[in-house]
Amino acid sequence: MTPDPSDDRPTERTPPAVAVVDAQSPGNVGTIARAMKNFGFEELLLVDPPELDPDGEAYGFAGQARADILPNATELEFDRLVDDYHTIGCTAVTNEDDRSHVRFPFSTPADLAERLPTVEAPTALVFGRERVGLTNEELARIDEICSIPANADYPVLNLGQAATITLYELRGLTLSDEDTQLPDLERVRASEPTVDRLYDQWGDLLAEINHPEEKHDKTMRMLRRVFGRADLTEREANTLLGVLRRATERPAENGN
Amino acid sequence: MTPDPSDDRPTERTPPAVAVVDAQSPGNVGTIARAMKNFGFEELLLVDPPELDPDGEAYGFAGQARADILPNATELEFDRLVDDYHTIGCTAVTNEDDRSHVRFPFSTPADLAERLPTVEAPTALVFGRERVGLTNEELARIDEICSIPANADYPVLNLGQAATITLYELRGLTLSDEDTQLPDLERVRASEPTVDRLYDQWGDLLAEINHPEEKHDKTMRMLRRVFGRADLTEREANTLLGVLRRATERPAENGN
Repeated sequence: MTPDPSDDRPTERTPPAVAVVDAQSPGNVGTIARAMKNFGFEELLLVDPPELDPDGEAYGFAGQARADILPNATELEFDRLVDDYHTIGCTAVTNEDDRSHVRFPFSTPADLAERLPTVEAPTALVFGRERVGLTNEELARIDEICSIPANADYPVLNLGQAATITLYELRGLTLSDEDTQLPDLERVRASEPTVDRLYDQWGDLLAEINHPEEKHDKTMRMLRRVFGRADLTEREANTLLGVLRRATERPAENGN
Repeated sequence: MTPDPSDDRPTERTPPAVAVVDAQSPGNVGTIARAMKNFGFEELLLVDPPELDPDGEAYGFAGQARADILPNATELEFDRLVDDYHTIGCTAVTNEDDRSHVRFPFSTPADLAERLPTVEAPTALVFGRERVGLTNEELARIDEICSIPANADYPVLNLGQAATITLYELRGLTLSDEDTQLPDLERVRASEPTVDRLYDQWGDLLAEINHPEEKHDKTMRMLRRVFGRADLTEREANTLLGVLRRATERPAENGN
């Protein structure tokens, strides 16, 4: 299905579905379901799936996806998949150039992450069977190709791992920053005045310990590099400031 | 081990090692070894590993890593790991803010990908056991924390999947663009003159089919959006140009 690009109506967008074609190992289906749950995807489509025994590896590997994604998966024919969805086929093996369009050109998962928000059709990420992936016949019927950049010496990822990486890269389609488990680091980053006080205190300490005058600027530059990279939190900067202040004042107290 | 930042000599950099602490499942160790091979990492460190039977799941899941990474893995104590390497501990569960430094602050794998090239010490990415990950005691001895952004409702990734994503994000440390299996798309991207000829041809076709004048600009804009997003290859653009040219000329020929 292709969206009509001259149609300007805003449409409600659902996250891409994940389709697995002819997987042999139930464990891989479970692994994919778990990655879907981890990154906010919900719709699992299965073409010619292996048997998914509730006491077997599919459910064993699915983590919390065993409660919803796996039991709610839809079994369908490959024909219906390509008819009903904008399909993105994932493959490790692309063509070298544009003489054949079956496996070329391709997008990387990172490319897709940028571009997919503009695709308004129901979309499915399609993963093929273990070992041989999607066949040329299948890829020829699929709308576009996605390939994960990997080591040229061994670019073939395990099915579950390929799906995990793709869903990770596309998490922006389903999860905003506020939907992740990670707190907002900006909120606690040390303010510039605090960081400036920290460098001033380092300067005082260098003077106090008679650090050679001619090395002062170079050492201060080194310190700025170190703490610049470290992205201190306000609390870290204040703790460090306290430590440095005490270190600076100690010799004077000893000298009294 | 911490590099001396005032030391300006360039040092030879080796890619980070991958350390797995107290894994229970040989299959996960195999999965991690495979991801290492896929993304160009070589050094596998194992703390309290399960038995890795050459006929078992570790070797079964490792793909081509069964030939080198897995048999060459080094078993070591956690003490030696933290003594000999700049350690980056991976965990799904971070602290909410900077009141405790055990699990805070953290970097994401994408942050690490930007920052790690500046770290010159031998570095190890450290992954913990299934279910509970790295303990607070272990994390307290580790140099920095990494966390993968995931669904707040279920952020806990499977061990093998977490390592796969982290190594994927850090592949830039080991693989240049030329080291991946993917051909360079820039090389085959349609040139601007070709793309311009394509739009001119669309314009001619619209005129030929009596597309309403007042809709011309809007439709051309739509076409530019469509083909702009599609990133045509030179060959695709030329094929399309040929098709459009014939479509444009057909009515005239019919009219003769």
